[in-house]
Amino acid sequence: MSPRPVENLGRFTITHTDGLARRASLVTGHGVVQTPIFMPVGTQGSVKALAPDDLTAAGAQIILGNTYHLYLRPGDDLLARHGGLHHFANWTKPILTDSGGFQVFSLKDIRKLSEDGVEFRSHIDGSKHFFSPEKVMSIQNNIGSDIMMVLDECVGYGADYDYTAKSLELTTRWAKRCRAAHPKHKNGQLLFGITQGGFFKDLRERSLEQLTPIDFDGFAIGGLSVGESIPEMYDMLAHIAPMLPADRPRYLMGVGTPMDILTGIENGVDMFDCVLPTRNARNGTLYTSRGKVNIRRAEYREDDSPLDPDCGCYTCRTFSRAYLRHLYVAQELLSYRLNSLHNITFFLDLAAKARKAIEEGRFAKLKAHYMEVFTPGATEAA
Amino acid sequence: MSPRPVENLGRFTITHTDGLARRASLVTGHGVVQTPIFMPVGTQGSVKALAPDDLTAAGAQIILGNTYHLYLRPGDDLLARHGGLHHFANWTKPILTDSGGFQVFSLKDIRKLSEDGVEFRSHIDGSKHFFSPEKVMSIQNNIGSDIMMVLDECVGYGADYDYTAKSLELTTRWAKRCRAAHPKHKNGQLLFGITQGGFFKDLRERSLEQLTPIDFDGFAIGGLSVGESIPEMYDMLAHIAPMLPADRPRYLMGVGTPMDILTGIENGVDMFDCVLPTRNARNGTLYTSRGKVNIRRAEYREDDSPLDPDCGCYTCRTFSRAYLRHLYVAQELLSYRLNSLHNITFFLDLAAKARKAIEEGRFAKLKAHYMEVFTPGATEAA
Repeated sequence: MSPRPVENLGRFTITHTDGLARRASLVTGHGVVQTPIFMPVGTQGSVKALAPDDLTAAGAQIILGNTYHLYLRPGDDLLARHGGLHHFANWTKPILTDSGGFQVFSLKDIRKLSEDGVEFRSHIDGSKHFFSPEKVMSIQNNIGSDIMMVLDECVGYGADYDYTAKSLELTTRWAKRCRAAHPKHKNGQLLFGITQGGFFKDLRERSLEQLTPIDFDGFAIGGLSVGESIPEMYDMLAHIAPMLPADRPRYLMGVGTPMDILTGIENGVDMFDCVLPTRNARNGTLYTSRGKVNIRRAEYREDDSPLDPDCGCYTCRTFSRAYLRHLYVAQELLSYRLNSLHNITFFLDLAAKARKAIEEGRFAKLKAHYMEVFTPGATEAA
Repeated sequence: MSPRPVENLGRFTITHTDGLARRASLVTGHGVVQTPIFMPVGTQGSVKALAPDDLTAAGAQIILGNTYHLYLRPGDDLLARHGGLHHFANWTKPILTDSGGFQVFSLKDIRKLSEDGVEFRSHIDGSKHFFSPEKVMSIQNNIGSDIMMVLDECVGYGADYDYTAKSLELTTRWAKRCRAAHPKHKNGQLLFGITQGGFFKDLRERSLEQLTPIDFDGFAIGGLSVGESIPEMYDMLAHIAPMLPADRPRYLMGVGTPMDILTGIENGVDMFDCVLPTRNARNGTLYTSRGKVNIRRAEYREDDSPLDPDCGCYTCRTFSRAYLRHLYVAQELLSYRLNSLHNITFFLDLAAKARKAIEEGRFAKLKAHYMEVFTPGATEAA
C-alpha cells in the first residue's frame, strides 16, 4: 500500500477563535477534518450497530479504531493484506487509532509492564502478547490509520505522586521511541503524542514540557475520565488544555458527555472520542435537544412524538418514541441501530453547532444553553 | 381509523401462467402486491435487524406481522390508538398478519383448546389469555393489517388420522366464525382462509371442500413444514396446491427454503413467508447465487470478494466476505443487519426472478437452475 501524496498533510489551520475555543481544520491522508469534532468509536472495525452509510448520514468526518482490538481480531497483518482498515471496512474518510495502551492497562491482572513495553494476555483466548512502542507503530502502520497515537501508560485514578511521576517519564521515553519508529508523515500517517501526569498539575506540566519538543502532529490529553469527579476533571482540563501547543490539534481522549465536550472546547480542545453515545444508545439512554431520554420508561409507551423534534436523523424523521420504546422493550435488534444512529447524530450535531458558534463568536452562549438542557433537574427523564 | 376506499380491493388478476405457476397481482388496502412474492417476517413489528429503508431497498412489497406477539407487545389496543401497525412501525406498504394460532399451538404445555377457542399463557410473563375466532379478528382489526388470517388449529407432524379429522372440522367452524366476525372488506382488510388436514390427502381435500364455499379473499395451506421430510412436504404440496380456488391468491404459510418456494410456485402457490432468511442471517448462513455460504468459516478469512457478485444489495456492493466474516466472528451488531439485508434481498430477488420467468414461459428452467445451485454437493460451503 503506497498512499498517494497529500498536499499540506498534517496542516492545522485555525480560522476562528472565541475565548480559548478554536475553529480549525486538519489535513489528513483521507481528507480534511473540521474541528472541533467528535469521533465515533469503531472498536473492532465497526461503530457498533452502524454501517458506513449511517455514519455518513450522521455527519461523521472521522472515526476511531482500537489498535488492541484490531490487532487481536481480525489482526493487523490481515488488514495490511486487505489495503488497511479503510478498505477492509469500506470507510473512505479519516481514521484515528489509539495505541492499544489504554485497553492493555485496563487488563489489570493480566499485564506486566517493563521498560521495553507491556506484556498482556488476550481477553479473547488468554494468549500472550507484547506491545512495545515500536510494535504499536508497526500495527498502526498495518491498520493504515490517518492519525496514529503513541504508546503511553495511562495511570488510573488514585495513583500516587511518585508512581505518576515515574510513569510519565516512561511515557516520554516511549513517545520518543514511537517518533523514531514512525518518521514524520511516513505512509501519509500523522502521529500524536499523549500527555499524562495524573491529577498533579506540576506532573501534567512536566509531561507536557517533555513531549512538546518532540515533533508530533498533534497532542492528546490522556488519563482523564478515569474515575475522578467531574470538578476534578474540569479543573485539570482547564489547567492543562490551554498549555498544549497552540499550533497543533488538541485531543481529549475517551471523553465524554455533551458537557465534557463543551468544557473541553471551551478550554481549547479540538478533538474528542467516546463510546458513551453508542453504549448509552444500546442501554436506551438517548440524548436530545431537551435533555436525556430513557426510552424504556413507561411514560413513552403512548408517546407518538419524535424522539427529538429538532433532530434530522432517520430515527427522528421516521419513528415515534412509542415505537422506539417498543423496540427497546421487545429487545429488537433494530433498537440498537436506531438509537445509536440518533445518539451519534446528536454528538456530531453538537460539534457542528460548536463550530458554528465559534465562527460567530457566541460559544459561551451555546455552552450556557446546553448547561440548562443537561442540568439533571431539567432533563425530560427527571 | 377509517381507511380511504380502495378501488378493486381484493382483486386478484392472473396475467401469465407457465405450467401451474401463476404470475398475478393482488390489490390490498396499501397497494398492489405482485405475485409470486416472499413476505419478510416482522414478528414484533420489526423485521429483525432491518428498518423500513432496508426493506424498501431490498424490494419488499409486503411484510408479515405476528398477531400473537403484537397482541402481547406492544398490544393491539395501543396499536389501534396509534393508527395501526402501518403508522406505528412507519411501514406504508401492505402487511399480512397471521392469526396467532400457530404461535399458540407451539406453546404445547401452556395452552388449552376448546370449541370456543384456545387459552394460553404468555411466553413473556406467564399471564393467562384467550384467543377465540372473534378475538383474533378484533386484534387484527386493531393491528390494521391488509390481509388477515383466520384462527386455525395447526396439527403437528405425527398427529393421527382421527385427531386430524376432528381438528379440521374445528378449523372449519372457526373459519366460519372469523368470516362472520369480519364481514368482507371491513376496514379495507382482506381475510384469507387456512386449509389443514395434516398429512392425509383425503383430509386435506375435505378441509378444502369445507372452506372453499366461504367467501375468503385468498386461501392458505397451513400445517406444512412442521417436521415432515422434504419429499412428504413436496408430495402434499403438489397434491393440494393446485386444488385451491384458482381465482384467489394461494399462500403457503411459514415456508421456506429457496427450493421450497420454487416448488410451491411450480404448484401454483402465490405467496410465501418464512423466518429462514433472517434467522439464518443471524447464524451466519447466507444465500447466494452460487449456493449457501457459512460466513463464519475460516476459508472466508482472507476472501476479498463480495458475498454474491450477482447481488446488488448494500452488503454485496460495499463489503468483502472477509469483513462480513470478521463482523460475525467479533459478534458485531452490524453483522445482523448486513447479513439480514442480503438474505432478504436474495429471497425477494428469487421471487422477482420467478415472476419474470413465468412471464417469459421459462419457469421450469429457472427452477432447474436453482436445483443445481442448492444441491448440497454444489454449495460453496460443501
